[in-house]
Amino acid sequence: MAKVPLDAEAVLSATEEVLRRHGPAKATVVDVARALGVSHTAVYKHFPSKAALREAVTRRWLDRGRDSLAAIAADTSSAPAARLRGWLFAVLAAKRAKATEDPQLYAAYALLVAEHSDVAAEHVADLLEQLRTLIADGFAVPDPAATARAVFDATTRFHHPAHTAEWDCAAIESDLDAVCALLLDGLPQKGNFS
Amino acid sequence: MAKVPLDAEAVLSATEEVLRRHGPAKATVVDVARALGVSHTAVYKHFPSKAALREAVTRRWLDRGRDSLAAIAADTSSAPAARLRGWLFAVLAAKRAKATEDPQLYAAYALLVAEHSDVAAEHVADLLEQLRTLIADGFAVPDPAATARAVFDATTRFHHPAHTAEWDCAAIESDLDAVCALLLDGLPQKGNFS
Repeated sequence: MAKVPLDAEAVLSATEEVLRRHGPAKATVVDVARALGVSHTAVYKHFPSKAALREAVTRRWLDRGRDSLAAIAADTSSAPAARLRGWLFAVLAAKRAKATEDPQLYAAYALLVAEHSDVAAEHVADLLEQLRTLIADGFAVPDPAATARAVFDATTRFHHPAHTAEWDCAAIESDLDAVCALLLDGLPQKGNFS
Repeated sequence: MAKVPLDAEAVLSATEEVLRRHGPAKATVVDVARALGVSHTAVYKHFPSKAALREAVTRRWLDRGRDSLAAIAADTSSAPAARLRGWLFAVLAAKRAKATEDPQLYAAYALLVAEHSDVAAEHVADLLEQLRTLIADGFAVPDPAATARAVFDATTRFHHPAHTAEWDCAAIESDLDAVCALLLDGLPQKGNFS
């Protein structure tokens, strides 16, 4: 291993690979240190605990792809109903892709959700803010944040990791489509789009 | 133990008590036989396997209380919107009561849901049929079964056992209220109630 100065980013990258190889139940800080060719105390200089390291890695992993979701939410060139539907389908597709393509990191994320970690709460807060922006821009509702919360709750089956196994079912997209139709029937679009 | 003739009902009652005492992970058919003062082969005469016994007990346990939900769904004297809202709140209250008052039986049920058991599928089918009847009676929609499915999916957070821990949160009822309002805004009521 090259003895370059150890920065937090290198620790995170190594931890991601270790998690991918061993899974969240078996990965240890010693594994991370070994992968970097340093002592575990060197790792602890950057992250005070294994839990803090796991949270930081999961946060970085979740953040990847969030910009493309935010771009859909902010795309005012598409009609509000199509944009809301497109965003909800993109969230499902992104979650499903992460679960399928990166199962060990996804398992680490699902554990943090089950433990009510701040990382999971921040992730939900980020998605809710994207949704609030979309709804405030496109729909005539008195309290866009409250409507965003209700839409997010009503689509729990399509984004909460407890339901990951259901996303393999062929009907999942038509199920989401039916929920979108029901929600959109009750949401008045603004301006030119109504 | 009295040596009365052993019927299936007695086996189910004993199994329910054993599950309540030991939990689904530790309860065995030998425990059930011991509680009844019979051999485990006598128990197997009524239920071919431990899994079959556990399913039968959970089915019976889930069925308790289903009639009062069905009565809400069928109460045509209340306006459709109030009836739909009332039914969804009653489902949440019933699930939460079962989780709180009978945690070991609830854990057995949650396990069957996670394993995609027929018992869980039948329970969902029963609730969907109640909801379909309510919607067919009260709302002007082209396909009441499809609308029932969409309403059930949109309220997953408020009835699926994966979310049980969230039902302790003070906001859960106002969250369900907001989802109900959103759904009802899109559902045209029939006749005198619109």
